[in-house]
Amino acid sequence: KMLRRVLCTVFFMGALPSLAEASQGHISVVLLGATGDLAKKYLWQGLFQLYIDQVSSGHSFSFHGAALTALEPGQRLMFDVLKKLACPPDESPNRCAVLKDQFLKLSQYHQLKTAENYTLLNREIEAQLHQEGLKEAGRIFYFSVPPFAYTEIARHINSSCRPPPGAWLRVVLEKPFGHDLQSAQQLAAELMSFFREEEMYRVDHYLGKQAVAHILPFRDQNRQFLDPIWNQHHVERVEIVLKETVDAKGRTSFYEQYGVIRDVLQNHLTEALMFLAMELPANVSKAEEVLQCKLQAFQSLRRLEKNSAVLGQYQAYASQVQEELQKAQNYISTTPTFAGVLIHSDNLRWEGVPFLLTSGKALDERVGYVRVLFKNRAYCTQSETLRDTGHSQCKAKQIIFYVGHGALNTPAVLVSRNLFRPVMPKSLWREAVAQSDLHIFGQPLSDYYVYSPVKERDAYSVLISNIYHGRKDFFITTENLLASWAFWTPLLESISHQPLRLYPGGVENQHLLDFEMVSGEVAFTVAEPVELLNPNRLTPSDYKTIQSKFRQSPLISAWSEDLISQLASDIEETAGTAVARSGQFHLALSGGSSPVVLFRRLARHHYAFPWKHTHIWLVDERCVPLTDTESNFFSVHNHLLQSIRVPYFNVHPMPVHLSQRLCVEEDRGTELYAKEIMALVANASFDLVLLGVGTDGHTASLFPQSESGLEGAPTVVLTESPVKPHQRMSLSLPLINKAKQVFVLVLGKGKHDIVTLLSRVGHAPKKWPISGVRPSSGQLVWYVDYEALLG
Amino acid sequence: KMLRRVLCTVFFMGALPSLAEASQGHISVVLLGATGDLAKKYLWQGLFQLYIDQVSSGHSFSFHGAALTALEPGQRLMFDVLKKLACPPDESPNRCAVLKDQFLKLSQYHQLKTAENYTLLNREIEAQLHQEGLKEAGRIFYFSVPPFAYTEIARHINSSCRPPPGAWLRVVLEKPFGHDLQSAQQLAAELMSFFREEEMYRVDHYLGKQAVAHILPFRDQNRQFLDPIWNQHHVERVEIVLKETVDAKGRTSFYEQYGVIRDVLQNHLTEALMFLAMELPANVSKAEEVLQCKLQAFQSLRRLEKNSAVLGQYQAYASQVQEELQKAQNYISTTPTFAGVLIHSDNLRWEGVPFLLTSGKALDERVGYVRVLFKNRAYCTQSETLRDTGHSQCKAKQIIFYVGHGALNTPAVLVSRNLFRPVMPKSLWREAVAQSDLHIFGQPLSDYYVYSPVKERDAYSVLISNIYHGRKDFFITTENLLASWAFWTPLLESISHQPLRLYPGGVENQHLLDFEMVSGEVAFTVAEPVELLNPNRLTPSDYKTIQSKFRQSPLISAWSEDLISQLASDIEETAGTAVARSGQFHLALSGGSSPVVLFRRLARHHYAFPWKHTHIWLVDERCVPLTDTESNFFSVHNHLLQSIRVPYFNVHPMPVHLSQRLCVEEDRGTELYAKEIMALVANASFDLVLLGVGTDGHTASLFPQSESGLEGAPTVVLTESPVKPHQRMSLSLPLINKAKQVFVLVLGKGKHDIVTLLSRVGHAPKKWPISGVRPSSGQLVWYVDYEALLG
Repeated sequence: KMLRRVLCTVFFMGALPSLAEASQGHISVVLLGATGDLAKKYLWQGLFQLYIDQVSSGHSFSFHGAALTALEPGQRLMFDVLKKLACPPDESPNRCAVLKDQFLKLSQYHQLKTAENYTLLNREIEAQLHQEGLKEAGRIFYFSVPPFAYTEIARHINSSCRPPPGAWLRVVLEKPFGHDLQSAQQLAAELMSFFREEEMYRVDHYLGKQAVAHILPFRDQNRQFLDPIWNQHHVERVEIVLKETVDAKGRTSFYEQYGVIRDVLQNHLTEALMFLAMELPANVSKAEEVLQCKLQAFQSLRRLEKNSAVLGQYQAYASQVQEELQKAQNYISTTPTFAGVLIHSDNLRWEGVPFLLTSGKALDERVGYVRVLFKNRAYCTQSETLRDTGHSQCKAKQIIFYVGHGALNTPAVLVSRNLFRPVMPKSLWREAVAQSDLHIFGQPLSDYYVYSPVKERDAYSVLISNIYHGRKDFFITTENLLASWAFWTPLLESISHQPLRLYPGGVENQHLLDFEMVSGEVAFTVAEPVELLNPNRLTPSDYKTIQSKFRQSPLISAWSEDLISQLASDIEETAGTAVARSGQFHLALSGGSSPVVLFRRLARHHYAFPWKHTHIWLVDERCVPLTDTESNFFSVHNHLLQSIRVPYFNVHPMPVHLSQRLCVEEDRGTELYAKEIMALVANASFDLVLLGVGTDGHTASLFPQSESGLEGAPTVVLTESPVKPHQRMSLSLPLINKAKQVFVLVLGKGKHDIVTLLSRVGHAPKKWPISGVRPSSGQLVWYVDYEALLG
Repeated sequence: KMLRRVLCTVFFMGALPSLAEASQGHISVVLLGATGDLAKKYLWQGLFQLYIDQVSSGHSFSFHGAALTALEPGQRLMFDVLKKLACPPDESPNRCAVLKDQFLKLSQYHQLKTAENYTLLNREIEAQLHQEGLKEAGRIFYFSVPPFAYTEIARHINSSCRPPPGAWLRVVLEKPFGHDLQSAQQLAAELMSFFREEEMYRVDHYLGKQAVAHILPFRDQNRQFLDPIWNQHHVERVEIVLKETVDAKGRTSFYEQYGVIRDVLQNHLTEALMFLAMELPANVSKAEEVLQCKLQAFQSLRRLEKNSAVLGQYQAYASQVQEELQKAQNYISTTPTFAGVLIHSDNLRWEGVPFLLTSGKALDERVGYVRVLFKNRAYCTQSETLRDTGHSQCKAKQIIFYVGHGALNTPAVLVSRNLFRPVMPKSLWREAVAQSDLHIFGQPLSDYYVYSPVKERDAYSVLISNIYHGRKDFFITTENLLASWAFWTPLLESISHQPLRLYPGGVENQHLLDFEMVSGEVAFTVAEPVELLNPNRLTPSDYKTIQSKFRQSPLISAWSEDLISQLASDIEETAGTAVARSGQFHLALSGGSSPVVLFRRLARHHYAFPWKHTHIWLVDERCVPLTDTESNFFSVHNHLLQSIRVPYFNVHPMPVHLSQRLCVEEDRGTELYAKEIMALVANASFDLVLLGVGTDGHTASLFPQSESGLEGAPTVVLTESPVKPHQRMSLSLPLINKAKQVFVLVLGKGKHDIVTLLSRVGHAPKKWPISGVRPSSGQLVWYVDYEALLG
C-alpha cells in the first residue's frame, strides 16, 4: 500500500519519476543499528540523499531500519531521527519537503534479534514486492553494529534474507575489521563463509571525503602534466595528515584497544597513500583494475620497523583511562594517541621518496590533507630581489588534496601555479577566488590554483551513492584489507613496548612532536622529551670500544652496535688500502645472522666504499638454490647487494646449484669456484675474509671432526653440517689462512661459552675448527661484543 | 750593497728580524711580466704583503721584476707601480712605511728577452748572495705572461736560472693552461721537460678566495656535524655560482677563443666543486692526501653530455666581436657568455645530487657563492601559524661559502641556525652581527650563523703566501689539470654548434636564463626564447608513429626517438601482462648499438616496470669475457642493469667463459644455457625476444650460411661470425620461434637496403637468417625507423 501511494505521488510531479521509469526494479535498504550514533549522525541522512538523487533513476526504494530494540520503542526512536532529516542546501525546499514525506513513508522499523525476525523481514519484503508487482533489483544490508555482532547477523542474512536469483545482495560493513592481521583474517574468513567477495562493501569513510575521492580522477585527468613528474625524480615527499584537536575522552574503552595507528593510519591514511602511490590503471573507472593496482602498490611497500614510527600520548589520556576504565592509579597505558610513520615504497617510481603519515588527538588544530611536495628542479639565475613577482619556477611546487577543516575550512584541491593549471571537472569542482591574506603550506593562497567542490557532500552520502552504483573501487576488498594489515601488523607488534612521548595537548605541544627522517627511520627532533612514559628503556652505554688480545691476536670489543660500526669502518679502510694498492678488493663473506647488521651498516653509512672495485666472494654456502631464503648468498643479496652498486661481474656466489642440481660432486662446483678464485684473486689470497663462530666452534662450513677442509690444500670443499641443510660448500682452512686479513665477528650471549673456551684452548682444528684460523702471513682480528665476551 | 743596508735597517728595529733570524736563507722572487695588468693590480701588492708577513720569518728576500721592455723605461714603469703600493689596513702606518721603503730597495727591474739576459740574471743573484754571505733557500719565478711565451721562458729558466743544489725552484703559472685536453696535455708535456712536478705551481686564483680556501678546513673542523649529513641522503643540491655584471667588451679577442666554460667553469667553479665533493682525507693539511682525494673525485664525475648545459650569449656580444675583431656584419659568434651546467657524481655519497655550476657575463649582479642546500628531513606537527618563532627544523637548511660581492659584499661563511653552530677558527673568522633586514637565499640573515674574515685578504696575497709556504694543495697539479680538461672537453666539443640563447643583459634578463633539471639534463625554463642564435637547428617532427605490415607482420615505424619510446612502452606492457599471468617475465635481449637507446629509455622512464619479476636472458653473445667492452652482456649491464633493480638470480648471461676459457665445446656452455632456459622458462618459450638485423640479414648471432642454429632443435649453439670476434653463442632460430613475442628493432639509414630487400624476399633463412624468424604460435612485430624504412 505504502509503495503504491508513493509511486502515485511521484506520478503527479513532473520532476519526479514516472511509473515507466521504475522499471529498473526495486531496491530494499536495511540499516542494521538504525538507532545508533552513526545512523543518527550520518547514515539516515545519507540514505535520504540517495533517495533524493535516485528517485528518478528508475528504481523504487524501501528503507528498513533495524535494531535489537522492540518494535514500538524502536519505531519511536527511529522516527525521531527521520523527522530531523535536513534538506540539502542545493535542493528546492518544496521538492525536498515532498521527498522527505515520501522517504518517511517508505521507511519502517524492524526488530531484528532472532532467526525468525530475519525470516519475517524477508517475507515482508517479498510480500510487498509481490503486492506492488515490482521486480526486485537488489538488497543493501548496512551493518552499523559492533563487530562482535557481525557473524551472527551475517549468518541470518545469508540463510534467510538473500534476494531471489537475478537480484543482487550488497552488505555494507563498518570498521574495525579486526585488530591485526590474524584477527582480520579470521573475521574475513567468517564473512566469506556467508557472502561472496563482490557482495561485501567494507566502508572506509575517508574514501568518501571529496578531496580523497578525487585523487585518482585527478591523476587520471591530469596525466599529461603528471606523467613526467609523478616519480622519485620529482617528488620530494608526501605528507598524509589527519590532525584532531579533540581527545579520546569518553571513548577510551574503544581507544585503549586500538590506538591511533589502528584507528586512523591503518585504514584512512593508508587508503589515501595507496591512491597516490599506486600505478594508474589505463581505465580508472574499471573497479577491478583500480583494485589490482592498489594491491600491487601494497606489495612494494617496504616493511616497517620499530624505528619507522614516532609515538606519543597526550598527558591527560592516562587519567582518562584510569577513570573511564576503572584502572588503578599506577596503571600505565601504552596506547599511542599520536603517531608519525615513515613509509617507503620499493617500486622504482617511488624509491627513496618519503611518505609521512601523521595523526594524533589533542593537537593544535583539526585538519586533514594529502600533500605532494615536489623537488625544486629549477635554478633561477636572476637574484631574488631583482626577479619580477611572477610564479617563478624557484618557488615551492605542491599539489594538496585538502580533506577539510583547518585554515581553509572546506575540501579543496590546490595546485601550485608554477606547476600547471589542472584539468578539473567543472560539474564537481569550481575554481575558488583566493583569499590573498591566507598562507597555506608556506605560501600565499594566491600562489595556487584552488578548487573547491561545487556541492559539499558528506562522506557517507558519497559512499552510499557508490554502494548504490556498485562502485567497488570505493570500498575495501578482503585482499586489500589483509594487505593493509599484513603491512601494519609487524609495526604494531614491534612497538607494543616502545616508549611514548608525553605531550601536553593543544598549542602547548609546540615542537615536541616534530620529527625527522634519518636513513629510513624517524625520530623526534627535540632530543630530550619532558618525560618518557615507559621508563624501562635501556640507558645509553658509556662503555667505549676496548682493544686487547684474544688467542694472541688483536681483540676489539664493545657493545654490539659500536662494535659493528667499528668493524664496518675497519672493512672500509682495508678496502681502500687494497684498491689503492691493486685496484681491487677481494672480500669473502660468511652467512649467518651476525653479519646482517654489518651489511646494513655498510650499505647505509659507507658512501665512499669502493664497491665498484670490490669483489664479493662467499666463505661458505648451504646446498640450496641461491634464491632459497636459507642461502647465505640470498642474505648477502638482500641485505647488501641490493643497496649498493657492485658490478654483476664482481659477484661470486658459490656454485652449489649447477645443471639444476645441488652440490653433485660430478658437477665439480668446488673445483669451479677454486678455479675462479685462482683466476681473479692474486695468489688466491683474499684481501679480507669475514668469519663467524658457531657454539660448537665451527667456522665457515667447517664443522668439528670434518673429513675435509681442515687441512691439506688451499681449496674449496664439500662438507657435512650436523644441522639442516646438511650439505655445505666451504673454503678450506688452508685457503682461509692465505688471506691478508681475517676478521672474526662474534655477537651475543649465546656465544659466551665458546668464547670462554676458545680463550683457553690451543690449536685444535679437528675439535674446534675456528682454532685453526691462523693466517700464514696475514693478520687475524677478533671482533667480540661484550655479551659474547663477558656473558 | 743593497741587501746589507736592508739587513742593517732591520737590525735596528725591534719588531723586525734580526740577522740571526735570516739564517733560514735567501729567497729570490722573479716576477715575469712585472709591468703587466695583473702585476699592477694584484701581484706586486701580493709580494709586498708577503714581505710584510714574512720579514721576521728568518728568510731574506729580493724581488726581481722582469719584462721585455728595455732596462730604463721598464725600471720607470715598474717603480711607478711600486710607489703606489698600499699599506694593508691592519698594519701600523709607521711600520708599513719603513717596510715599503725596504721593499722598494729590495726590488729591481731586469730586461729578460734573450738567453744572455737570463744568464746574467742568474749571475747577479749568485753574486749578490755571495757578497752578502747568504745561503740560498729558493727561487720563485712568477709567470705573468701570455701562455705562448711559456715554453721559451721555461727553457731559459731551466737552462740558466736553476738555484744551486739544496735550494728549491718554484715556478708559478697563470691560466689559461690550454684550450682543451689535447692542448693542455701538450703544454703540460712541454713544461714537464723543463720542470719537475713539485716545482710547478699552477694558480687558480679562486683557490685563494678566502671563502673557497676555507671549504676544506670547514669540512675538517666540522666533521662531527657534517659526517652524517654530507651525502646524497641529506644534500638536496649544490650551487656553485659566479655571476658578473660586466661584459666582455675590450677583451673579446681573448673571450672569443675561450668563452665562459673555459674562462670560469673548467677552472674556478670546478675547483670549488672538488673541494665540496671529494672525500675528506684523514689529514687535510697533507697536500698529497688532498690532491689524491681530489683526483679520485674527478674519476667519479659522470660524463657530461650535450644536454648537461644550457648556454647563452648577451645580445651586444656579437657587435662587440665584429667591432673589436673586425669581423663582417653577418659574422655569428658561437661563444657562450653564459652557461649553466648540471654535474653528477657517481660516487655513492653523491649519487643523484645535482651540482649546478653557473656563470655568465652581463647578468643582474656581481656575486660568487658555493651553496649547499640540504633536504628538508623534518616534519613539523604544529601548524605554521601556531609555531613559535624559533629556528624550526622545518625551515630551509643551508651552508653557504660566500666568495664576495652581492648583497653581503664581503666573503662569508653562512650556516643555517637550525643546522649546527660551526667550529670556526677565531683567528681567521669572526661571527658577524646579522643585519636583520637583509634576506639571503630566501631567508633573513638572522636565520644563519654568519662569519666573515678577521682580515679580508686578496686572493693573490693568499696564494703568494701559499707559494712561499709550499702548500701545493692550493695549486693545480698536472694530473688535476688534465683530469679537469678530460672532464670538460667532451662537453666543449659537443656544444660547439649548440644553439645559444640570446639575453639582453642586466636586470632585463629576468627569467630568460632560469633553467631546470629533467632526468639528468638541463633546459631553459622559459620555453620560447626571444631569438635563437643558431637558426639551423632541427625542426621538431610532426610525423606520427605509423602502423602497417611488413613481411605479413605488424610494422611500427616512426622517427627513431618516437619509435624507441613506443617500443619501450610495448615492452613494459608485455612485461605487465606476463607478470600478471605467470608472476614472471622472461626477456631475451640482443647486443648491438640500437638497443642501447632502448635500454636507457627503459631505465629512466619506466618506473612501473616489474623488474623484480623480470628475468634477463641474452639472445647471443660474443666469445669474450663478460667484462670485455665487446661483450653484449657488458652493454646490457652498463646501460640497463646498473640503473635498475633486477635480482642477481634473474640475470642470465650466456656462459661463454667457463673454467676461465672462452667457448670451449667440452665446457658445454651451450648445453648449460639450454638447461637453464628449460629449468626456468616454461616450455622454453620466452615472453619476449628482442632482435636486430645486420646489413647481411643476420639476426642474433645467426649468420648467412651458418651450419648450426638455422634449423633443427630449439637449442643454444656456437656459431661463426664473418667479423671479429668470430666465435659466438646464440639462441637457435627454432628456440627464438618458440617465443610468445618477438620484436625486431631496425634503426638507421644503413639498414635501408636490407629492409628493402627483406620486404621482397620470402622464407630463406640460409641466405638471410632474419627471414626465418616466424614465431610458431607467438607474434612478430617489426619496429623500423623512418631512416631504415624510407632511406
